Amino acid sequence: MTNTEPSAAAATSDNDRFERGLDLLRKVGGNPNPAVLDSLADIAPDLGRLTVEFGYGDILSRPGLTLPQRQLATVSALAAMGNAAPQLRFHIDGALNVGCTREEIVETLIHVSVYAGFPAALNGLTAARDVFDTRTDIPVRTESVPAPTGDRFERGSVRLSEIDGHAGEQVIASLQDIAPDLARYLLEFVFGDIYSRTGLDLKARELATVAMLTALGTAAPQLEVHIHGLLNVGGTETEVVEVITQMAGYAGFPAALNAIAVARKVFADRDSARTRA
Amino acid sequence: MTNTEPSAAAATSDNDRFERGLDLLRKVGGNPNPAVLDSLADIAPDLGRLTVEFGYGDILSRPGLTLPQRQLATVSALAAMGNAAPQLRFHIDGALNVGCTREEIVETLIHVSVYAGFPAALNGLTAARDVFDTRTDIPVRTESVPAPTGDRFERGSVRLSEIDGHAGEQVIASLQDIAPDLARYLLEFVFGDIYSRTGLDLKARELATVAMLTALGTAAPQLEVHIHGLLNVGGTETEVVEVITQMAGYAGFPAALNAIAVARKVFADRDSARTRA
Amino acid sequence: MTNTEPSAAAATSDNDRFERGLDLLRKVGGNPNPAVLDSLADIAPDLGRLTVEFGYGDILSRPGLTLPQRQLATVSALAAMGNAAPQLRFHIDGALNVGCTREEIVETLIHVSVYAGFPAALNGLTAARDVFDTRTDIPVRTESVPAPTGDRFERGSVRLSEIDGHAGEQVIASLQDIAPDLARYLLEFVFGDIYSRTGLDLKARELATVAMLTALGTAAPQLEVHIHGLLNVGGTETEVVEVITQMAGYAGFPAALNAIAVARKVFADRDSARTRA
Repeated sequence: MTNTEPSAAAATSDNDRFERGLDLLRKVGGNPNPAVLDSLADIAPDLGRLTVEFGYGDILSRPGLTLPQRQLATVSALAAMGNAAPQLRFHIDGALNVGCTREEIVETLIHVSVYAGFPAALNGLTAARDVFDTRTDIPVRTESVPAPTGDRFERGSVRLSEIDGHAGEQVIASLQDIAPDLARYLLEFVFGDIYSRTGLDLKARELATVAMLTALGTAAPQLEVHIHGLLNVGGTETEVVEVITQMAGYAGFPAALNAIAVARKVFADRDSARTRA
Repeated sequence: MTNTEPSAAAATSDNDRFERGLDLLRKVGGNPNPAVLDSLADIAPDLGRLTVEFGYGDILSRPGLTLPQRQLATVSALAAMGNAAPQLRFHIDGALNVGCTREEIVETLIHVSVYAGFPAALNGLTAARDVFDTRTDIPVRTESVPAPTGDRFERGSVRLSEIDGHAGEQVIASLQDIAPDLARYLLEFVFGDIYSRTGLDLKARELATVAMLTALGTAAPQLEVHIHGLLNVGGTETEVVEVITQMAGYAGFPAALNAIAVARKVFADRDSARTRA
Repeated sequence: MTNTEPSAAAATSDNDRFERGLDLLRKVGGNPNPAVLDSLADIAPDLGRLTVEFGYGDILSRPGLTLPQRQLATVSALAAMGNAAPQLRFHIDGALNVGCTREEIVETLIHVSVYAGFPAALNGLTAARDVFDTRTDIPVRTESVPAPTGDRFERGSVRLSEIDGHAGEQVIASLQDIAPDLARYLLEFVFGDIYSRTGLDLKARELATVAMLTALGTAAPQLEVHIHGLLNVGGTETEVVEVITQMAGYAGFPAALNAIAVARKVFADRDSARTRA
């Protein structure tokens, strides 16, 4: 058995779960003596054990998403929530440890601005800078991702249709009578500026979006649109379920359960659309 | 009249409210000169006064929950929100001052992992460690709570039925077609690991759960399940209303008002079930 | 064209947006070399550019609200979210730079206690104190706003009717069977203590309230009541749309989109009420 492709069988013993989780935590954290165990030893050693067993042995060990995909999902969710700075730094460092590049991390944090606002994105980048400063082992890129070319509005309209299809066009249409400029910003800024950037592909953006909206728990309509979006740009139902399940550990079980309810509706709607077609 | 069992009569004068609140704040804060008054004196003295009058004179002085119950509810909610570190430390210290033990506080913070994720629990424990380090007057426990024995899945199934009854089983059943492993984690981790721990009884866990879900405001379906849960494990309707009302001060009035709407539905459902029976 | 009354025309080029945004950012930040550009130069220069273009060139440049109104809305929302301390300090400083007084800022932060709890208000005031300490150019006020006089309950009842009309009375009535004391606190504390204070007029309070409830995204019923409230105390539909649109930059697009959906319902309800009348 390798650590990166563990069995997800229900029948694994607690000892297996701890050992499997500890191996994975060492890999993500880049530290043979994980700080979470040391720091909890005097006050809540059981929570350290549960973090290893559940967070790493159960959740992060699951197949269905790669470790780099999982780390970028966690980074986006923790940056969006904005209330867990130590863990955000840990998981940015962890993303580097499992093979994410600096630019993927930076692009993911720029993407956060759309779903949780600029302050969340800016504070996420401050955390990233702190981490990057400690990682002299990884070369600094100074050039930025090339800016998208052409008209922002046109470019955004194309991207919106690609990701959200008819649902995205309905959102734009529904805003025309009340806040047409917000519709314009959606096309120009969200889809024309951010989603058109080249540093992160559309599937990675939609995985981060589903992770963030699951963790925030405040935007069920948009979560529905972007579960469709993830499936529209090449994601699978398994990947949707995996990224939602992962959020149980970072934002709590209610967040995951409520997002699963949205996913169930999306999957059923697509099934029935296929049946009608 | 004693300070710990004040009248909640509506007709008390503002002066009574301030005096009653100040006595209680001194008791919770363990400081004859509360810092909240000093620190606001130069910038917003009225907010200091309102904190004492409303927060302590009105809310925390109410009968219906004990001060230790109220402090654990506040600690769980502030840890779950994760955005008020100074107040979290103050109320952990306050919990010790009104008679909570270190292990009750630690158990409450471990319980937070279920509803707000591991980062919230870990940061809560960091706050607890900071506070505990200053409290040489209270002996350090080094042994951990004995781990529950037996099969996690079996143990979790029993606990789930005990707390949530039929509603919990429906949640599990509804996940089988889409995310069966999330259902398994609910049974194994949430109910088998966390709810089966011995350091905090089920009623205290459900009080903390209702406090957290009220404060977060993002999980009405789970709030409904756990208001039932609190009533199922020995809580009263008065206690439900008290813990929700208390959250008005820590998470704002909308959070409390929306949770009361959920409680109203739960109370009515139970009334009509009793009538039918 | 002046920088403070820019055209909101859709056809402005990216270069116009950057120049217009940079002028405005310099004015708000009080710094010819905005830190957000410098600090992002090495890690995510494009996010610096997008902040200037979208945040300042598009959003904050819009007509419909004054810069002081916009800064108080941002300050209230960031304090309520409680997860972006650096930006909260920046925008408190920015509020002073565009002409808000210290007391307006303090009153706005006291108002936060109602919608996001006392911890959020207290941490907002800590941020304000930090900023004020650096602003020796602005005289310190030491006297507090005169406390409202008369009976809190009576005063609150009058204020509630003024702001929320029939809807507010329905909220109070609906609580009588389950949590009558919470109804009393709403009248006494929220409307009798806070809304009756003289340092900020009702329209400014309702603008802050709509900003906060949009940003938090957890309280649609109260957002509906307070969009009505803002319109009841002299706000316009344009101002409602503007403050909601502004939140796209501080709390993300889903927050703004979901609040616009609530506003659409409120506007339609008022239209149909007018038609019936």
